[in-house]
Amino acid sequence: MATKEQSKEMTRRQFLNTVGKLGGSVAVFSLMGTMGLLTPQTLKAAEFTPPGRNDLQLSGRTGQKIIILGAGIAGLTAAYELGLAGYDCTLLEAKGHAGGRCWTIRKGTAASEIGTGLQIARFDNDPGLYFNAGPMRIPQFHVTMEYCRTLGVAIEPFNNVNESGYYYNENAGPLSGQRVPKRAAKADMRGYVAEMLAKAVDQKALDLPLGPEEKAKLVEYLRAEGDLSPDLFYKGSSRGGYKTEPASRLDAGVRRDPFDLKSIVNSGFGNYFSNEYSYDQQMLMFHPVGGMDAIVKAFEKHVGDRIKYRTEVQEIRQSASGVRVVYKDLATKQEHEIAGDYCICTIPLSVLKKIPADFSPDMAKAINSTRYASAGKIGLQFKRRFWEEDEHLYGGSSLTNMDITQIYYPSNDYFSKKGILLGYYAYGGIADKLGGMSYQEREKLALTQGAKIHPQYMKEFDASFSIDWKRVPYQEGGWVSYSADDRQTFYKTLCKPDNRIYLAGEHISYITAWQAGAMESARVVVSDLHQRVMQA
Amino acid sequence: MATKEQSKEMTRRQFLNTVGKLGGSVAVFSLMGTMGLLTPQTLKAAEFTPPGRNDLQLSGRTGQKIIILGAGIAGLTAAYELGLAGYDCTLLEAKGHAGGRCWTIRKGTAASEIGTGLQIARFDNDPGLYFNAGPMRIPQFHVTMEYCRTLGVAIEPFNNVNESGYYYNENAGPLSGQRVPKRAAKADMRGYVAEMLAKAVDQKALDLPLGPEEKAKLVEYLRAEGDLSPDLFYKGSSRGGYKTEPASRLDAGVRRDPFDLKSIVNSGFGNYFSNEYSYDQQMLMFHPVGGMDAIVKAFEKHVGDRIKYRTEVQEIRQSASGVRVVYKDLATKQEHEIAGDYCICTIPLSVLKKIPADFSPDMAKAINSTRYASAGKIGLQFKRRFWEEDEHLYGGSSLTNMDITQIYYPSNDYFSKKGILLGYYAYGGIADKLGGMSYQEREKLALTQGAKIHPQYMKEFDASFSIDWKRVPYQEGGWVSYSADDRQTFYKTLCKPDNRIYLAGEHISYITAWQAGAMESARVVVSDLHQRVMQA
Repeated sequence: MATKEQSKEMTRRQFLNTVGKLGGSVAVFSLMGTMGLLTPQTLKAAEFTPPGRNDLQLSGRTGQKIIILGAGIAGLTAAYELGLAGYDCTLLEAKGHAGGRCWTIRKGTAASEIGTGLQIARFDNDPGLYFNAGPMRIPQFHVTMEYCRTLGVAIEPFNNVNESGYYYNENAGPLSGQRVPKRAAKADMRGYVAEMLAKAVDQKALDLPLGPEEKAKLVEYLRAEGDLSPDLFYKGSSRGGYKTEPASRLDAGVRRDPFDLKSIVNSGFGNYFSNEYSYDQQMLMFHPVGGMDAIVKAFEKHVGDRIKYRTEVQEIRQSASGVRVVYKDLATKQEHEIAGDYCICTIPLSVLKKIPADFSPDMAKAINSTRYASAGKIGLQFKRRFWEEDEHLYGGSSLTNMDITQIYYPSNDYFSKKGILLGYYAYGGIADKLGGMSYQEREKLALTQGAKIHPQYMKEFDASFSIDWKRVPYQEGGWVSYSADDRQTFYKTLCKPDNRIYLAGEHISYITAWQAGAMESARVVVSDLHQRVMQA
Repeated sequence: MATKEQSKEMTRRQFLNTVGKLGGSVAVFSLMGTMGLLTPQTLKAAEFTPPGRNDLQLSGRTGQKIIILGAGIAGLTAAYELGLAGYDCTLLEAKGHAGGRCWTIRKGTAASEIGTGLQIARFDNDPGLYFNAGPMRIPQFHVTMEYCRTLGVAIEPFNNVNESGYYYNENAGPLSGQRVPKRAAKADMRGYVAEMLAKAVDQKALDLPLGPEEKAKLVEYLRAEGDLSPDLFYKGSSRGGYKTEPASRLDAGVRRDPFDLKSIVNSGFGNYFSNEYSYDQQMLMFHPVGGMDAIVKAFEKHVGDRIKYRTEVQEIRQSASGVRVVYKDLATKQEHEIAGDYCICTIPLSVLKKIPADFSPDMAKAINSTRYASAGKIGLQFKRRFWEEDEHLYGGSSLTNMDITQIYYPSNDYFSKKGILLGYYAYGGIADKLGGMSYQEREKLALTQGAKIHPQYMKEFDASFSIDWKRVPYQEGGWVSYSADDRQTFYKTLCKPDNRIYLAGEHISYITAWQAGAMESARVVVSDLHQRVMQA
């Protein structure tokens, strides 16, 4: 019965798509409002109505040639959407693979950084043994999820929050050099803070704008929040874990003793808590099964035949009537030229600024003014998953004020024999420092510091692969970095089409450092371009 | 090179197992201490050394017959461990399937509750369309994970925390009847509370035992915790979400407006936060791929041939020399008798108390004194996953003060077409109220109340299946419920062997309501029994 109805009936999604094609995004909006479906996310999703699949043909406008520079996530998204609408896209990609920073390292991955020798990943040949050198997680509400759905990319949770992970700080008071489970630090810090405020609620000095009943509700909340005793003291909590676990018969378990207030305040652990509160770091997060580049491979199924790999852009030229790009085929060392109607340029500005191009002076200046963030990662393959086997820790991270900054445990292939940890993920000055080291020195540092948290490191280590994004050819940076001032000044120039050239990428968005930024920026360029073509 | 070393070398786990076999658990303990591997969890794991596989044979003690009453998780664990050691186990199971409360509902599941008619699950035939009527999640540190590893049960994360889920309360001030994303309620409550305390830190009235530097650190923490402005005000936060999402070009996003302090305090949402802080509810949690009964099926591969299904225990008898159990074959209605050396009785005490048995007066009294908690669940199959498609909500829960108490979204088969929600999961008096309704009335209530949170409910609904655990034959309760007093009195009797009968199950543990309690209790009985047999 249900199955019959279902097959007869158009899904809501199909219906909205149809309305979109007939009446455009305004019609979709109005209808969704009527249907009670308007949320910030659906609003945003509804903003993009892909170009009609027959628009070009019906209006006799076939043959529009679009040259897309860079087959990263922005370039792939643009080529995919334009391709569906009948545009003739060509992608020039300097690397031997698509995806840009969406790059998954596995056995045999070979790459040279700028100024250093070749590095080959000597990981085992196993689909679960990979690590994502660039983006590694996707918030539920990012458009990236919608492309995974549309392209048939299977996803699984990325364990961004795990209370069994550790905090480990040095030079931070009595708890220095001690690995502390996150659950323990959180229970104590939240407990003491709730106690302080619960006792103060009734003090006149605080002058809270609450009536007596509301004050009672606040105290009730603080008791729950801090696991306080009836007389409003924090005396430790099972939330922080046990010295001896509860078990069968008379084993009631023995709770750990709480740290004292001074120790936990001086540890600095509390400053880590809010990492997990950021809008784009909150649970739940996801990643594709088998590596982030599953997204790239899925796009390549649609547009792979439009990509010229290992082609390095030499010049970007434009006139009133079209664009022209000179590129070098890195295999043959021959220069070629390609002409088109429009150009979508997704090359990171750190690289683009060095390419001769016909940009307006304002655009050239904006490109030159843009800075990129440093970021570095190392993948460490271990002979066994000691974090799972010995420590009952399945995914998530440990955070530290050592240079390695953080360790992430794999959120895939639980219970399998070997595993690849993210041994460090550093930003800013620390990333630059690590990037300045040889691959061997980076490995040694990751192992030496990591072993302070996990003594099993040295015995179980297998192989490493490290990345310094500032030194990755054709990338030269982790992600764009704008100040509030930058956004008010030159960023606005970057957002405007420069005659026939449109910039796209995470750098043309307010979701910088995320694939969703690249995708959203590609979609808006696609819409713009299509509108321009249809009105021409 | 790495691969060679690995194959030559014994893993740490294998090594410890070997040591355990040679020298018993004391040797394992001492060695693990030396190796720096002693954590509360490993300590607990090390406490169980399975009976030696050749102990019986080497000592000429073959032929020990163990009768296990109930093929739930405790019975299966006991049979598995004893079977490996060469014991001759027979399991009597009243139902047609093993697992007890570890019960997964899928297409065709048919069951009658006590006092009501037959209910058949009319879900679609699809491996992803199931719901776990009993246990549905596993903390990382529970022994359940170790059995999954050992038995080859594939696991995936159970999304117990999802900031995109909702709170929805009625009769709770200005926010009554409004579904509020968890992230929004948390950002506001934490923000205001951090603001209150941050402003109070320097007030003498508070008299905090902290020096000026520590007070500054505390304020720094509170600023991070609450996302406060430099002058320590909470003015809203991107953590709470957006009215308009940030996107490409000039779309910086528009943050939602915070609720005012009075509204958020009166909403009662804050009292939900700490659910996620409980030791056994913290992320990360897991569940077997395809349904919790994957654990049962894995055990059945080893001991399935020892289970007599649909056999109802009529009498439990024991003497100085052995045990004797009278049971009825429910297929033939014939009574049979089985004799053995020992009995492990895992029958829930709510059922056991009605079975004539040779228990000591103390034990009989203890069994009679034990109370069980009420619990009820409903699974709702929907024609499409509107929570994923429309609301970008992948797993996790919504909480409410309506009778349905909570909704859980499936943590499996993301992006697939249909899905089964947990439409309510109620305890106590509410569970009793729902349990007293007909299956149709329960369904109607789940849909009517759920539709207040998800207007898509009515249009997309397919089929339901509901459970009231107090009415499930041979279970008659959700889980055992001891007061602190009970633990000090009759519980101690339940833990002791009664001549040749040993009780096992979640009710003989401090991990009640969890499969781990059943497993741990079975393991300790296995150890006891083996020691007794070897010393006899």
